[in-house]
Amino acid sequence: MAKAITPKKVYNAFYAQSGGVTAVINASAAGVIETARKYPKKIGKVYAGKDGILGALYENLIDTSKESKEAIAALKYTPGGAFGSCRHKLKSLEQSWAEYERLIEVFKAHDIRYFFYNGGNDSMDTANKISQMAEQLEYPLTCIGIPKTVDNDLPLTDNCPGFGSVAKYVAVSIREAGMDVASMASSSTKVFVLEVMGRHAGWIAAAAGLATEKAGQPPHIILFPERVFDQAKFLARVDEVVKQYGYCTIVVSEGVKNAEGKFLAEAGTKDAFGHAQLGGVAPVIAQLVKDKLGYKYHYAVADYLQRSARHIASKTDLEQAYAVGKAAVEFAVKGHNAVMPIILRQKGRTYGWQISMARLSEVANVERKMPDTYISQDGFHITAACRRYLSPLIQGEAYPRYENGLPAYAKLKNTVVPKRLKTAFTLKKA
Amino acid sequence: MAKAITPKKVYNAFYAQSGGVTAVINASAAGVIETARKYPKKIGKVYAGKDGILGALYENLIDTSKESKEAIAALKYTPGGAFGSCRHKLKSLEQSWAEYERLIEVFKAHDIRYFFYNGGNDSMDTANKISQMAEQLEYPLTCIGIPKTVDNDLPLTDNCPGFGSVAKYVAVSIREAGMDVASMASSSTKVFVLEVMGRHAGWIAAAAGLATEKAGQPPHIILFPERVFDQAKFLARVDEVVKQYGYCTIVVSEGVKNAEGKFLAEAGTKDAFGHAQLGGVAPVIAQLVKDKLGYKYHYAVADYLQRSARHIASKTDLEQAYAVGKAAVEFAVKGHNAVMPIILRQKGRTYGWQISMARLSEVANVERKMPDTYISQDGFHITAACRRYLSPLIQGEAYPRYENGLPAYAKLKNTVVPKRLKTAFTLKKA
Repeated sequence: MAKAITPKKVYNAFYAQSGGVTAVINASAAGVIETARKYPKKIGKVYAGKDGILGALYENLIDTSKESKEAIAALKYTPGGAFGSCRHKLKSLEQSWAEYERLIEVFKAHDIRYFFYNGGNDSMDTANKISQMAEQLEYPLTCIGIPKTVDNDLPLTDNCPGFGSVAKYVAVSIREAGMDVASMASSSTKVFVLEVMGRHAGWIAAAAGLATEKAGQPPHIILFPERVFDQAKFLARVDEVVKQYGYCTIVVSEGVKNAEGKFLAEAGTKDAFGHAQLGGVAPVIAQLVKDKLGYKYHYAVADYLQRSARHIASKTDLEQAYAVGKAAVEFAVKGHNAVMPIILRQKGRTYGWQISMARLSEVANVERKMPDTYISQDGFHITAACRRYLSPLIQGEAYPRYENGLPAYAKLKNTVVPKRLKTAFTLKKA
Repeated sequence: MAKAITPKKVYNAFYAQSGGVTAVINASAAGVIETARKYPKKIGKVYAGKDGILGALYENLIDTSKESKEAIAALKYTPGGAFGSCRHKLKSLEQSWAEYERLIEVFKAHDIRYFFYNGGNDSMDTANKISQMAEQLEYPLTCIGIPKTVDNDLPLTDNCPGFGSVAKYVAVSIREAGMDVASMASSSTKVFVLEVMGRHAGWIAAAAGLATEKAGQPPHIILFPERVFDQAKFLARVDEVVKQYGYCTIVVSEGVKNAEGKFLAEAGTKDAFGHAQLGGVAPVIAQLVKDKLGYKYHYAVADYLQRSARHIASKTDLEQAYAVGKAAVEFAVKGHNAVMPIILRQKGRTYGWQISMARLSEVANVERKMPDTYISQDGFHITAACRRYLSPLIQGEAYPRYENGLPAYAKLKNTVVPKRLKTAFTLKKA
């Protein structure tokens, strides 16, 4: 017996990861996919962009319906970007018209009427523009942003999924390395420098400050991009700390600049011939201490380790990353458009959070700065207010499963669906 | 009723941590102290040297009997050196006679007749010399070495406590960072370099190779100090890997040297004026790739993070670290002298281990090299034999307790006992 033909109301969804990945961005993906599977009468397949938005432009759509329930659930425990991400930024509608047009073309060809974009400021701007574009072209597209950034710089949301886990990693790492240095300092290394991410804002560096629960505990000094590097004041403080505690641990943000507005990492304090130094800011700071104060040093550069360290992710961060993915789909099926789930902190002494909603137009391209009141008077540590804000974000552990002594991270099939368009697409070179 | 006076048979013990600390050296301390407390008729107090052997020389003895049972148990979950360590090496009996004499003087003054020295090659040599010295002076001192080194270079023992946890850290880290790089490589970073410890031997770099369970998984290239750095061959391999997999992850040992026998970290491939480059080998390797192949890179320097990362310590390593501490005391009360507990691997397909005994004279100053058969033909990865040796050492997790989102590590009172000697001691400047 032939089935009755019903009018089509089920449309596919497109999900893409954008920009630098995090330890928990795949939890947002799991939130999207698992929730979409609960609405089979509204959402058909969830296609994921291979390498982010490039997947849509090149019509490389990964069919997530080919993945088992278990594989999708395992995404919650898997760092990196499971479908690939990219740093490609769409410019204004005028400048990047061809790209926007191509996106709509691909969406049409694959019956995609839901667009979920998982990223930071730039991506929210892109999602907003795509929404405007679709409206202009009268293509019914629901565009929902999903916040993600280790930089913690999206506005309106209390914090950004991805940040809490880096925060936990850097706080744990400086506590541990600090204990190492403390035990050797009487006859060996006296100064230890840890370089962390944060080119524009000191959120990650600030998070390291959580490790200092009592005066004298590492990190002793934090260098923020929000404060101009004052060499004399810094060296005086290092010397004071070493004399008081026997050693000094320093967390430096990669974005620290000197009075001329140059990144210390590039300014080079050593080379009289003006050669750019290899490496980042940690060796520059460490060498400066050695040259001026004579203390033996060691330094570490956490780099990608900090944002991929799923093994030590924050449970709170993980739950929030999942929740924004889930909420994005719920918003979409309820008919919202051009919005982004945000995290609202509940009032009161005990930390609590809930999901709320912000318009993409209000989020796009607005950068949330670290409040001035979060940095201590001397510029070298965080305040109690900063601690109250940051501390809840690193609470809880959510360990991955281990196999053979190593985390057993999800490996998806990532099956790309056959292309339907005859036209290939080539990006214009920037 | 007055107690009957019995002849004194209970003597104190001295325990010292030596050289670079590890994530689990305090577990050995816990093994020593908890076991000693089980023999109150033989061992009185366990004094720990403040900052290692310097604590004995300066008569700074920490009374571990002042620490609660809980505090000592918590040492199993605490990185760094709980009593302080140092890099002070005692030379030959002739050269350092005054120091050896001083040690015996301090031991006599505090009724110390057990000496437990927790360290690497140098320390086993020192423990052996102290034993000889005591014999010469007819002072009845039981000297027991306790193996510890992230370098894994002590002979006779199958492996060294401390190594397994670094091994696990570097394998987990390169797996995680590799997933990050893989997801961004199509439009961003293509080459990632992780610098790990190992100035003389490639054990730690080799351990990173455990993350490669299938061809193509990170790390793609390992640079060992056992292989002369061949720039052309290396660059060719990087290019090949990027072309095949889209990205390339590299683990480099800090000890890698060029054909002239110079550390790459110091050789500087960039600076025409011969200025020493700041920083280690990772930036040198990364910049070389950029200059010659044009690939965008990132690099991380794990430094102290790798050897203090108690949060991701190997359970096997932890258990072995505890076991050698425990065995050291058991050997002592059984009347053994000038020995060190070693770890014996049982024969057969399933990994098993037990504690055995080696003479300090056979351990002292013998460096265990990585077998040639552990490095693959092309020099860029580990062999199956190496994997079989290393894999059991990273098995199991043994998470610390968390408080406020951070590991709650033990903080001891470290009460120094009153000095009994009238003479102060000053080290001769080297």
